[in-house]
Amino acid sequence: MSKGLPKRSEDYSQWYNELVKRADLAENSAVRGCMVIKPYGYSIWEKMQQQLDKMFKDTGHSNAYFPLFIPKSYLSKEASHVEGFAKECAVVTHYRLKNDEDGKGVIVDPDAKLEEELIVRPTSETVIWSTYRNWVQSYRDLPLKVNQWANVVRWEMRTRLFLRTAEFLWQEGHTAHATRKEAEEETELMMNIYGQFAEEYMGVPVVKGIKTANERFAGAEETYCIEAMMQDGKALQAGTSHFLGQNFAKAFDVKFATKEGGLEHVWGTSWGVSTRLMGALIMAHSDDNGLVLPPKLAPIQVVIVPIFRSEEELLAVEEKAHEVMDELKPLGISVHFDHRDTHKPGWKFAEYELKGVPLRIAMGPRDLANNTIEIARRDTLTKEMVNLGEVNIGSYITAKLDEIQESIYQKALQFREEKTTPVETWEEFQEVLEGKGGFVSAHWDGTSETEEKIKELTKATIRCIPLDQVKEAGKCILTGNPSSGRVLFAKAY
Amino acid sequence: MSKGLPKRSEDYSQWYNELVKRADLAENSAVRGCMVIKPYGYSIWEKMQQQLDKMFKDTGHSNAYFPLFIPKSYLSKEASHVEGFAKECAVVTHYRLKNDEDGKGVIVDPDAKLEEELIVRPTSETVIWSTYRNWVQSYRDLPLKVNQWANVVRWEMRTRLFLRTAEFLWQEGHTAHATRKEAEEETELMMNIYGQFAEEYMGVPVVKGIKTANERFAGAEETYCIEAMMQDGKALQAGTSHFLGQNFAKAFDVKFATKEGGLEHVWGTSWGVSTRLMGALIMAHSDDNGLVLPPKLAPIQVVIVPIFRSEEELLAVEEKAHEVMDELKPLGISVHFDHRDTHKPGWKFAEYELKGVPLRIAMGPRDLANNTIEIARRDTLTKEMVNLGEVNIGSYITAKLDEIQESIYQKALQFREEKTTPVETWEEFQEVLEGKGGFVSAHWDGTSETEEKIKELTKATIRCIPLDQVKEAGKCILTGNPSSGRVLFAKAY
Repeated sequence: MSKGLPKRSEDYSQWYNELVKRADLAENSAVRGCMVIKPYGYSIWEKMQQQLDKMFKDTGHSNAYFPLFIPKSYLSKEASHVEGFAKECAVVTHYRLKNDEDGKGVIVDPDAKLEEELIVRPTSETVIWSTYRNWVQSYRDLPLKVNQWANVVRWEMRTRLFLRTAEFLWQEGHTAHATRKEAEEETELMMNIYGQFAEEYMGVPVVKGIKTANERFAGAEETYCIEAMMQDGKALQAGTSHFLGQNFAKAFDVKFATKEGGLEHVWGTSWGVSTRLMGALIMAHSDDNGLVLPPKLAPIQVVIVPIFRSEEELLAVEEKAHEVMDELKPLGISVHFDHRDTHKPGWKFAEYELKGVPLRIAMGPRDLANNTIEIARRDTLTKEMVNLGEVNIGSYITAKLDEIQESIYQKALQFREEKTTPVETWEEFQEVLEGKGGFVSAHWDGTSETEEKIKELTKATIRCIPLDQVKEAGKCILTGNPSSGRVLFAKAY
Repeated sequence: MSKGLPKRSEDYSQWYNELVKRADLAENSAVRGCMVIKPYGYSIWEKMQQQLDKMFKDTGHSNAYFPLFIPKSYLSKEASHVEGFAKECAVVTHYRLKNDEDGKGVIVDPDAKLEEELIVRPTSETVIWSTYRNWVQSYRDLPLKVNQWANVVRWEMRTRLFLRTAEFLWQEGHTAHATRKEAEEETELMMNIYGQFAEEYMGVPVVKGIKTANERFAGAEETYCIEAMMQDGKALQAGTSHFLGQNFAKAFDVKFATKEGGLEHVWGTSWGVSTRLMGALIMAHSDDNGLVLPPKLAPIQVVIVPIFRSEEELLAVEEKAHEVMDELKPLGISVHFDHRDTHKPGWKFAEYELKGVPLRIAMGPRDLANNTIEIARRDTLTKEMVNLGEVNIGSYITAKLDEIQESIYQKALQFREEKTTPVETWEEFQEVLEGKGGFVSAHWDGTSETEEKIKELTKATIRCIPLDQVKEAGKCILTGNPSSGRVLFAKAY
C-alpha cells in the first residue's frame, strides 16, 4: 500500500497529495477545485465535529441553519466585506435547464433568469445579520449565540485537497451581544476553544495571536487566530475568531432596546474552523509510512491483525481477539478485528500504518500458546510483547493511547520550538526564511506598507502578533523604524 | 405565546405556518423559497439525524461527502434523470463579481464565465456514480455503502416551510452491489429502517409500499416509500428508497470484475429522508395549543417551572428542583429548569406547551411543604400531583415518557385507520375524497393514463401500492378494467 509514497524530505508537497489519496482521505472530483471526502477521511472529520460541537454547546451555543444562497445586494451592504469576497464568488443566475431546439442536448433556459443573482455563500455574515434584525429587539433577546455546520464556496484558482478547495465544509459561529466587552470576551473565548481543540485533540500546538490589518477578516475590527507549524516549516492558519464591532449590525440595522431605555446597535463576533483542519492534522504528524493520527481523533484506535495459516488457527485467534475486544470496548476504545483472508498480515500492517491507526495488535498461534500479544505503536514504529497474564489489557491500552496522544503533541511542540527563531536584522531574517524556515520572530514597524514590502521580497507574511509574549520595544527589521513588539513571520499555506 | 394560533379546524394550513414560526422552528429567509431553521427547530432535526445516523452505521453504512456542484453534462447522462430534474435546477454560470464602471455597485463579472455551467445538486446520483467508477474495479470493492448528510436545491415555485423548500437538508444513501438481489434487499432494508424510525421515534405510523411508474424517482427501476397521514387527512411521503437497477452504472460506466472472471455493471440503490420529516412530525401530533413532540425526539423532555413570589422562595424551590434533576439526568433524561424571573409561570406554561415539551413539572412553596410536585402531560393536557415520598421520581418520569411515546403513536395510528377507506365505485371514491379525506383504498387498472385521469379529476394521486396487503382481484374504479390489487389514493403534500 505505502509502496511509492514519496518521501517528505524529497518532495513534501507530493508526499502530502499522495498520502491524502492513498490513505483514502479525499480525492479531487470532476468539478474543478471541489473534493470528494472519502469515508475514512470523513470519519476523522466526524470525530472533529463531534468534539467541537460539544465544546460549542458546553459554552452555551446552539446550532441552526441559514440559506446557501445570498442575494447579491446583501453582500454589498458591508463595504469591506464585499471587497474581500467579490473576486471568488460562485454566482447562480438561472433556475432551469431545457432541451436545446438545435439538438445540442440540455442547455440553460435563457427565459429562467433570476431577477437578482444569488451568491453561493462564501461565509454567512450577511444572510445571518439580515435575519438577526428580526430576532433582536430588546436586551432580553441577547446574547444570541448560534453556530452552523455548513458548506461554503470560494472560487479559488489554485486548490489543494483539504488545504484550499473551492467548496469546503466548516462551522461558522455568529453571535450578537449587548456590549463591546461581552463580544470581545466571546471572540477570545472561541479562539481559546479552538486552541484547546487543536492542542488537546489534534495534538497540534498553536500560537494564539491577533492578525494585522492586512490579514484581518473582511468586515472585522479584529481577527484572532491560531497558527500551527507544519513539518516543512510552513505555517498554517488553523482557525479564526473575529470581533466584528458594530459593523454588521450597522450594515443590517440590528438594534436593541437597552435596559435603560435607549436604542443601540448590537456587537458581533464570528468564528470558524473548516476541513482545512484535516490538512493540518495530516501534515503535523504523519511520516513517510503514512498517516499518524492522535488517538482522540482516530476512527479506529486499535486494530487486531490475526496471524494464521488455516481456518482453524483463525478461529482460535479470533476467540482470543474477542476476549481482548470485550475488555476494550466497554472503555470506549474503538477496536477493529481484521479477519479478512484476502490479504496477508504484512499487507495489513502496511495498510494500517498508512491509515494511521495508533495501535496494532498482532496475534498468532504461538501467542496463544504463550498468552502474549504483540503491540505496535504507529507513531514510534516500535513493538513490544505483552503477556496477557501479567497486565490488565484495558488499562494497558488506555495508558498507551494517552501516552501516544501526549507524545505526538510534545514532538510537534518541540519541532515548532526548534523552528521558531528570533532575529534582529534583515540579513538574519532572510537567511532563516530561506534556510531552516519556520516562524521568524521579528520587530516590525506596524505599517501595512512594510508588511507588504516584506511579503513581496520574501513571500513571508505576518502570521500573527502573539498574545503570549512580553512586550519589548525594538527596531523594524526592514525599515529600522521603532517597533513596540515582535510579530511572527512565516511562509504559509 | 399561543395567543392567536389559528385553530386546526378553521384553517389547518395557516395553523401549520403559524405554529412553525411561533414555536421557533423555522422561518422564511430573504431568499425566495429558502428557509432559516431556527435553533429550537434545528435541535429537533439534530435528534433525528443522530438516530438515523446510528441506524445507518449499525447496518454497515459510512458517511462521506461529495461536491455541491454537478457539471451540466453529468446530469444529462441518465436520460430520465435529467428529464426529472432539469426544470428545477439552480445554475451557476459565473465565478466572480466586480465593481460596475457605471457606478451601479457590484455586478456579475461577464469575463468570469464558466466554460461549463454547474448545477447545484438536486440529488447526487450523477456525481457519486461518476466517482464510483474509480472506486469499483473488482467484486472485492463491493458492496459500497455510503451516505451523505447534505443540502440540496430544487427550484420549486410554491414553497412551504419544511414541506417544500428550494433548499433543504437531507441524507442521501448511495450503494453499489454485485448482484440485483443484494441491491433489492438493500432497497427494502432502507425502507424498513425509515419505517422503523418514523414509527418508533417520530411516533408516526406509515404505510410501506411501492410507487407507480408515474411517481417513481427519475432514473430508478423501482421506488419504495413510506407514506404518512396528516391530521387534515392529506398524505405525506416521508421517505423513499430507490432500486436503480444498472441504470447509473451504465450511464457512468461502473463495471466490476466478478469472482468468476467476468466484467459486469454493478447494481445500485439510493435512499433519502429530509427536513420534510420535520413537517410530518409537526403535522402528525400537534394541537391548537402548539407542538406535541414525541419524547424520543424532544430536545427538552421535562421542564421544571418554579412558582415563587420572592427570591427566597425561588431558592428553596431551586434546591428541590436540583434534587429532582439529579435523579433524572443520570437516566439520560433531558431536563431544563426555567429560573427566569422576567416571565410569570403562566406565560412559561403556555410557552412550553407551544414548544411541545412532553412533561412539565411545576413546584412552589406549598409543594415543598407537602413534598409534592405537579406534573402536566403535553399530549393529553392532563395534570397530576405526585408525592415525592411515595414514588421514585426517576422511574416515574421514565415510565411516563414511554407512555407518551406510545400513546401519541397509537393516537396517530387510530386516526389513520379511521381515515383509511376501502371503496368499490367511482361515486364512493369521489365522495370519500371530498368528504372525510384520508387514504382511499381502491382498485386501479394499472395504467398511467387512468392514474393521470384520476389526478386530473380529483387531485388525488396514488400514494403507493401497499406491500402489506392481501392481493385481491377487482375492477378499476374509473375504467372498470381488471385490477390485480388495491392501491392507496390520497390528496398529498
